[in-house]
Amino acid sequence: MKILDGRATSEKIRKELSEAVQERKKNGKKIPHLAAVLVGNDGGSMTYVGAKVKACDQIGFESTLIRYDESVPEEILLAKIHALNEDKSIDGFIVQLPLPQHIDEMKITQAIDPKKDVDGFHPVNLGNMILNLPGFLPATPAGIVELLKRNNIETEGKNCVIIGRSNIVGTPLSLLLARNSNPGNCTVTLAHSKTKNLKELCLSADILVAALGKPEFVTADMVKEGAVVIDVGTTRVEDATRARGWRLKGDVKFDEVAEKCSYITPVPGGVGPMTIASLMINTLKAMELKGK
Amino acid sequence: MKILDGRATSEKIRKELSEAVQERKKNGKKIPHLAAVLVGNDGGSMTYVGAKVKACDQIGFESTLIRYDESVPEEILLAKIHALNEDKSIDGFIVQLPLPQHIDEMKITQAIDPKKDVDGFHPVNLGNMILNLPGFLPATPAGIVELLKRNNIETEGKNCVIIGRSNIVGTPLSLLLARNSNPGNCTVTLAHSKTKNLKELCLSADILVAALGKPEFVTADMVKEGAVVIDVGTTRVEDATRARGWRLKGDVKFDEVAEKCSYITPVPGGVGPMTIASLMINTLKAMELKGK
Repeated sequence: MKILDGRATSEKIRKELSEAVQERKKNGKKIPHLAAVLVGNDGGSMTYVGAKVKACDQIGFESTLIRYDESVPEEILLAKIHALNEDKSIDGFIVQLPLPQHIDEMKITQAIDPKKDVDGFHPVNLGNMILNLPGFLPATPAGIVELLKRNNIETEGKNCVIIGRSNIVGTPLSLLLARNSNPGNCTVTLAHSKTKNLKELCLSADILVAALGKPEFVTADMVKEGAVVIDVGTTRVEDATRARGWRLKGDVKFDEVAEKCSYITPVPGGVGPMTIASLMINTLKAMELKGK
Repeated sequence: MKILDGRATSEKIRKELSEAVQERKKNGKKIPHLAAVLVGNDGGSMTYVGAKVKACDQIGFESTLIRYDESVPEEILLAKIHALNEDKSIDGFIVQLPLPQHIDEMKITQAIDPKKDVDGFHPVNLGNMILNLPGFLPATPAGIVELLKRNNIETEGKNCVIIGRSNIVGTPLSLLLARNSNPGNCTVTLAHSKTKNLKELCLSADILVAALGKPEFVTADMVKEGAVVIDVGTTRVEDATRARGWRLKGDVKFDEVAEKCSYITPVPGGVGPMTIASLMINTLKAMELKGK
């Protein structure tokens, strides 16, 4: 079994991006500038946004963090999005999800200019992905595909089972892995809460992706010998042995599954850093698509 | 075995639409108006466009057929599309595919105003479909879903295998059948030219959709006893016994498969009429989405 080390792979990507920034500076070109909008004080969201800002610093991108109180009215947030859409100094921006209940996430997602939508959540970018047109790929699925690619994992003709059909992970990943591309050309099955015989289905998978958000859901008896296992789960569970009182758990029971599979992503240090790397790739691409 | 009669089902839909038109007339509302652009003299395309215009006549929609010679320059076609986008009398329009080689189909598809894209091919409409936002569903996949619905075929928790990953049938259908909806909630596997063990995979399907464009590709030994079989193929094959010299063949070897399955769509008279019915539904919806 080998660890699919998202942290190490993302470090390589950051290094490449950092070199690209240096090159741009040398040529008097604009430095990419990412803005992130964070609403409220959710621990996970604060951590993720913090990591994104830190990645910008490390690479040499400019970044701006915009924070709002949990109670911010939807129209204030929408006005900010319109301002960011117009702001020529900002190349791409994200609004960290989830948002408080009183805000319509879909309305927020659609308000973002698709050309600045570096999270790749806007319907235009999802549609462009289906048609293989230029645009931004959703950050987590694109990160997973990049992780497979940079670790030379063959996907063509492989059976891939994805558990979880979310708009931001499972569904777009199913499209990326099924399409005629490399990585790609998998025979993809998208499984979800209504799927029957899930265990049997998972046992047929050469590549198994767990993206349902249930800690340790995937156990060894669900995994084929030699499979590649990608764990997208990041649930905070209580852990009194840690100073902060919690730790991250994936959707895969790591210790027992690791013994059976050929490759596995750890949590943390697997898909998470790759999501951030994708976001950075998209931010640089945002400038290039504009011809800047 | 029961025939999934697309012709009969589409007749019912046309009747409903016809009543909706009468109701609109009574209330002094605008009558839906569909335009179709046809380039060249491809036999299949002429038949399809003819059937669409005829369906409009039957329902009471207005229709306009715009024809160009095979050699029409791309910019003339694009100019026409822009004119149709602006024309307030036209509620929806289609450009019949395929187009001649010198015309970029993707450019044409993207030039159509998504609000008039009643074929549902524009990236915005595909993205809206992923996110379950209002928009136009691609006509053939939506027609198949409607056919299942109106014939009370249970889809929840069923294994569905789709052969063929085209942008206009296989890929969007995989999304529609997988999503949390009724019909929907299938466990969908999207198979294609790189899929291994296709026969074994097909044998696991409760619902099998053949959309690859190879006449009689699906044989009885690939079909599970009692499966629902949907045949999207429409290839013209030579037939000297017919006055016109050809007949339509589906992707399924009908006679032998019919004996094994619970439901099957014939070709012609299955998915084809449902595609046209979807187009008509979308044309009426185009007006309703505009609040007309």
